[in-house]
Amino acid sequence: MNTDMSDLRVVLLCGGVGAAKLARGLSRQVAPANLTMVVNVGDDFDHLGLRICPDLDSVMYGLADVHDRARGWGRRDETWRALGAITAVGGADWFALGDLDLGVHLVRTAALDAGDSLTTVTHKLARSFGVNQQILPVSDMASPTELSLVDGRRVSFQEYFVKLRHQVEVSAIHFDHAASAAPTTQVTAAIDNADLIVIAPSNPLLSIDPILAIGDLRQLIAERRNRTVAVSPIIGGRALKGPADQLMNQLGLTSDASGVAEIYQNYATAMVIDTIDQALVPKINALDMACQVGDTLMDTDDGEDRVARLCLNAIGSGR
Amino acid sequence: MNTDMSDLRVVLLCGGVGAAKLARGLSRQVAPANLTMVVNVGDDFDHLGLRICPDLDSVMYGLADVHDRARGWGRRDETWRALGAITAVGGADWFALGDLDLGVHLVRTAALDAGDSLTTVTHKLARSFGVNQQILPVSDMASPTELSLVDGRRVSFQEYFVKLRHQVEVSAIHFDHAASAAPTTQVTAAIDNADLIVIAPSNPLLSIDPILAIGDLRQLIAERRNRTVAVSPIIGGRALKGPADQLMNQLGLTSDASGVAEIYQNYATAMVIDTIDQALVPKINALDMACQVGDTLMDTDDGEDRVARLCLNAIGSGR
Repeated sequence: MNTDMSDLRVVLLCGGVGAAKLARGLSRQVAPANLTMVVNVGDDFDHLGLRICPDLDSVMYGLADVHDRARGWGRRDETWRALGAITAVGGADWFALGDLDLGVHLVRTAALDAGDSLTTVTHKLARSFGVNQQILPVSDMASPTELSLVDGRRVSFQEYFVKLRHQVEVSAIHFDHAASAAPTTQVTAAIDNADLIVIAPSNPLLSIDPILAIGDLRQLIAERRNRTVAVSPIIGGRALKGPADQLMNQLGLTSDASGVAEIYQNYATAMVIDTIDQALVPKINALDMACQVGDTLMDTDDGEDRVARLCLNAIGSGR
Repeated sequence: MNTDMSDLRVVLLCGGVGAAKLARGLSRQVAPANLTMVVNVGDDFDHLGLRICPDLDSVMYGLADVHDRARGWGRRDETWRALGAITAVGGADWFALGDLDLGVHLVRTAALDAGDSLTTVTHKLARSFGVNQQILPVSDMASPTELSLVDGRRVSFQEYFVKLRHQVEVSAIHFDHAASAAPTTQVTAAIDNADLIVIAPSNPLLSIDPILAIGDLRQLIAERRNRTVAVSPIIGGRALKGPADQLMNQLGLTSDASGVAEIYQNYATAMVIDTIDQALVPKINALDMACQVGDTLMDTDDGEDRVARLCLNAIGSGR
């Protein structure tokens, strides 16, 4: 697989920020027409009448190069004037709505209200941001993730993630609507045609699993195990961002790159892991998975490119 | 009527900016509990999923002293970041949504969606802006103003006012939903209890008439003619702002303060007119209306106070 990588048809299964970084890296290795992002919709929710799709926006902002790398989410040069006005009148201000972000939420919501599918709206938004790669919501049907807490409560993803700042113990994760939701025909076609499927370094339980749970995608990806590679979001036993490590612990999983490999063993033939986790290679190999080991931090464009190349090399070397 | 003016119970029939200025003036002469603004809802509309109530906001922003006096509408220190983002993705940007303004639109829309009446939402918003006077939408029912154009089109108020910048010839104004809409009980009670009813210097045809058209308000105000005074929005034959003069011409009315007096002759016993229109006094008196003549410009707090005092004096002197 040392032929021209840009001819490879690549599908990236995406959560939010980590996925956006890898999407940026892949976008510099693969021709735009050959790169498709299939994005989690389990975090999508309605807030103040707006339809908010955090993962779709993170991926779009990343590819459009308007993302805020330092903050890790949202847009660069963002301001929070509307949010201040919401706070001032006692409105619901627990979710950080940036002014630039708001413009996108408003246009998306209006288009959905006018009857556009989420796929169509996302396509139009991405094009107007100059993004020529394909960004696809995994489904046009809503499939909100919910979590059961040890204290007995059952909460929405955003309540867990933002309101409770994930400082609670989780006993179970639910994708109640996922099985009856369907992946779009565009998603199925992209997976069918993919030479390489990459599972982004997103939260395996909260970002990737709700994608796999949609319709028959679990089976579809499993059938393509030999062309699928997963990037571990856990480096040295810790999630770079968010509660992936803590959540894996709470649910009785091993919270390191080998634990991630266990989660993906039916879906991926190779793992991309960080040099710091070199010692886990035998454990991962024992799951019948190859390893690409390297520096997997993506805090610069170079880092993004490096991880993208590790993914592209993983399949070639893994077979 | 040289007793303490602050004991007077005053109702101000309000359109937008001119009304907001007079509301500010009255708020410094009359006790907060005794001052009620009854506001036009004919301009209210839905835009990008938001419920927008321009006249209610203008009056609220004015009384809260957060209005932009120089621009004449919207909020001081406003920014337009979200609007820029909307434009960038090809969204509907013909209506100027300020970032601060957006916060209010979002909270209002969410509260309406949650089942609050417009009266309740407006009360909550006003209180959170520190406004202790009563701001009442004339009705909780929608009553959108529409206009017939000479070219045969029929357009919404906002299409006429913003999209077409009122640079079209109007043949008729319609309040089709007004007769079947009801004034709120709060509005009826305020009018019942008013010692003085002031018709603000708003557009008589597009701001005040759609108030009078609601339910039986026309009759209710007519029955209180002897305690009602109107301020002319036409000074020296010209509207200070907006298309009132042009519209009166197009519809065959005399576009000066005497033409305004003709419109209000069944509802008001006195007119407040500008010194520049002194010569029109006999013509207005002939309509069985007294005149208070003075400087009616309200581009400063002093100006607002002066016009408020002219209104308060009008009833005392007019009988």
